[in-house]
Order: sequence, then C-alpha cells, then structure tokens
Amino acid sequence: MNCELCACDGGAPIWRDEQCRVVRVDEAGYPGFCRAIWHAHVAEMTDLAAAERHHFMRVVFALEAALRDLLRPDKVNLASLGNVTPHLHWHVIPRFRDDAHFPNPVWSAAIRPPGSRVRTGVAIEKALAKRLSRL
Amino acid sequence: MNCELCACDGGAPIWRDEQCRVVRVDEAGYPGFCRAIWHAHVAEMTDLAAAERHHFMRVVFALEAALRDLLRPDKVNLASLGNVTPHLHWHVIPRFRDDAHFPNPVWSAAIRPPGSRVRTGVAIEKALAKRLSRL
Repeated sequence: MNCELCACDGGAPIWRDEQCRVVRVDEAGYPGFCRAIWHAHVAEMTDLAAAERHHFMRVVFALEAALRDLLRPDKVNLASLGNVTPHLHWHVIPRFRDDAHFPNPVWSAAIRPPGSRVRTGVAIEKALAKRLSRL
Repeated sequence: MNCELCACDGGAPIWRDEQCRVVRVDEAGYPGFCRAIWHAHVAEMTDLAAAERHHFMRVVFALEAALRDLLRPDKVNLASLGNVTPHLHWHVIPRFRDDAHFPNPVWSAAIRPPGSRVRTGVAIEKALAKRLSRL
C-alpha cells in the first residue's frame, strides 16, 4: 500500500491527538485552507465507530469555528472526498467572495486570479493550534 | 430573502423529521445522489448548537451507510459548501470508478460520458426511506 496520508503529515502540522491531526494546506489564494486527517487508514466515515466519528467531527467543527473567528470568511466549505487518496480526511476551506473560484467549489475551473489576501501561514498555524489545544 | 431551500424541498423527498430532511437529487449518471438539508435558514455547521450538529451528522452518516449498502459505491463524497445557496445542506454522493468525473470531484469538468448505471429513483427513495425510518 502506498498511501500519501499514511506516509506523510499531509501539510504543515498544526495540532494532533491520538486519533487525528490538523494540517494547513499551502494553496495560493486560500489562506487558512486546512485538512483534518484521521491517522488510521480508513476510507469512509461509516467505517469508523460512532464515537470516533463524533470525535472527528468535533475536531472539524472546532477548526471551522477557529477559522471563522480568525479570518471572517464569507463561507466555509467542508468536504470529505478521498477519491484519489481514500484515507479519511476533511477539507476545511474558508471561502471569500473574491477568491479564484467563488461561488463555485475550489475544484471547479478558476474564474478569476487568486485573491491577494495576505496572512502568513505561520500566524494562522499558531492561532489555530492555540484554539484546538482547548479541545 | 429569496432562498431556494426555504421555498422548496430541494429534491425528491425521502425522509424528514422536525429539524432536517433528506432528498434525492436528479443528476444524470449519479444514482443515489442525495442531500440532507437543515430546515431552518442557517449558513454554517457552527451556527448550530452542538446537539443540533450531532443530530444532523447522524442523519448524514445514516444516509451514507444506507447508500453504501444499497449501491456499493467505490467511494462516498460528503460536502457542505453552500456558496451559492447559503442554507445548510450536505451533498452525499455515491461515486463509481466509471462515473463522469472519477476520481475528481463532481464539480470539476467531466472526463468521460455519464455512466450507464440504471437504478430507478423511486426504488432508491423507497429503500433509503425505510433505512432512515429506523433513525
């Protein structure tokens, strides 16, 4: 088995516990684009036990809350897809009216140049780590 | 306010309770494409109380489990986007290796013609309604 999310963190590490981790994805024009990744190689949410699902979603929603406080996005997009990498992970994506794809999903064709929102990744990582440490 | 999901069911009704509903989306080549929709006009999961979030996710995961049993998809995609219609709803999409977009998200450009999976919508609706009635 050759799974990217078994072999690597999958982004800049922000927070982790025994079961899952949160990383920041370096995507131009998308400050605060994060992923919550289950450590074990499992494909679907319904492959987890109910208590595990509940824990994982608590992390996802804590991340959403922290990103809303921090960046005040126009919308948050949440998605568990995993067609390419069937190792359970959630995309948590702050969206802005002037980002490259809005109002379309980030996986569609871009309709404008990347936004110019400047916020250093390190500042975001520190603020999110602080918030998630209260979990 | 002119919200499509306040004004309409948003698809073929399958199941509902006091807080949310499940509908089937009629999308060519995507049998079992469903949405779980919160009745109240709320934009983000973190606008709900923790107990409401938990309830909504239980419905989403029951729907995922039912669709897996029924259709045996290669992957399930879950997404709460709402950039166009900021009224809380989850896309629950059974994916197949030969569908029009696999392994890309359904919101990307199609890379092949729609699959020829034939399954009548009504049969899917009945089977899902039966499963969700156990919630």
